[in-house]
Formats: sequence, C-alpha cells, structure tokens
Amino acid sequence: MAAQRFGRIIKLKPEAYEEYKRLHANVWDEVLTANYESNIRNFNIYHWNGYLFAYMEYIGDDFEADMKKKSKNPRVKEWQKITSDLQQPVDEDSDHWWYPMEEFFHTD
Amino acid sequence: MAAQRFGRIIKLKPEAYEEYKRLHANVWDEVLTANYESNIRNFNIYHWNGYLFAYMEYIGDDFEADMKKKSKNPRVKEWQKITSDLQQPVDEDSDHWWYPMEEFFHTD
Repeated sequence: MAAQRFGRIIKLKPEAYEEYKRLHANVWDEVLTANYESNIRNFNIYHWNGYLFAYMEYIGDDFEADMKKKSKNPRVKEWQKITSDLQQPVDEDSDHWWYPMEEFFHTD
Repeated sequence: MAAQRFGRIIKLKPEAYEEYKRLHANVWDEVLTANYESNIRNFNIYHWNGYLFAYMEYIGDDFEADMKKKSKNPRVKEWQKITSDLQQPVDEDSDHWWYPMEEFFHTD
C-alpha cells in the first residue's frame, strides 16, 4: 500500500517561537520511537511567520488505531502537553488541532 | 547522499483558487517529466486559506544546475508563466518566488 500523506497547519502562540524551535531541535527519543512504531515516516515541521506546517507519511494500515495507541504513551502525552501549550489551532471551531490542508498536487 | 528537503510557501492571488486547483489536478506530462529529470521527488502542494505550501525532495547532486536546466524547458516556461500569474510572493522584497520556510524538525 502506498503511503498516505498528510499536510497540516497550526499557529504558534506569540512568543513561542524560540521555545518550540528549541524543543524540536532535540525531540525526545521516546517520542521519536513512538512515532516510528506508529508507522509515521518522513515527518517534517516547517515554520513561517508564526505558522507551523507539518508534512508526514503513514505506512501502516490503521491510522486511527496507531494514533490512539500512540496517544496513550506517557512520554508522548507529556510531550504533547508541552508542545500544545505553545500552539493554537488555525480554526477554533474545528475538531482538528493540527488542521488538515487541502492536497492540490503530489507526485512520487 | 540523503535527499535534500524543501518546504516553501507562496500566496494565491484572490480568485485564483479554482484555476490553480484545476491546473494541478492535471499537471502537464512534460512538466512532470522535467521535474523527474531534474531529480525532484515526492513533490506535494497543499492549500490553506489562500496559501500554498510545497514540500519536495531533491536527490541529485547539483540543485542549481538542475533547476537552471529545467527552467529552460519551453513547456516548463509556459507552465510557470501560467501558474505564476496566479501567485504572489509572501515577501515582495525577497529574491525567492516560493519562499523557503524554516525547518524545525524532520525524521526519516
């Protein structure tokens, strides 16, 4: 099965730039391992002007189950608590924290 | 050599959404071939709220030379004329048309 691709966007809170950047320069090993075991690959986060853009690929066959399992990992919970305190959704009315962007194009 | 990754951003002009989306649902074969021959892989364009986000990988060993060669392709020139008329840079003072975002994180 081909990888599923995800492009997502979120805002950084004002003043959160340095802390968010610092955290992501040294992501915890347990978080990296949890992502890997959740079949996440090629995970990238870019910043521009207070926005964060994530691109990642999923190579498993049950994304919801893998994300649910990952979310129960204590170190992942701890990481998400710290990082989500630095973020704010681009759409407060959405159920999504990281908002799914619309794919216009992709090629392998 | 590991692939180089690029995350870039640009704006769509007002009213350009439908046309840009339509064009990218059927990118010309010659443009796809030119990208491939320029050692571009895993090229993705996402849209959110009038912004376009591109993520791509480069697997060659001379990015500037490959881009220069590609830019001389007549169909690529034609494509870029059409698509760039629908775009506007996020930073008018920058030399970049598609503006390079800052990489905060990546994992393979």
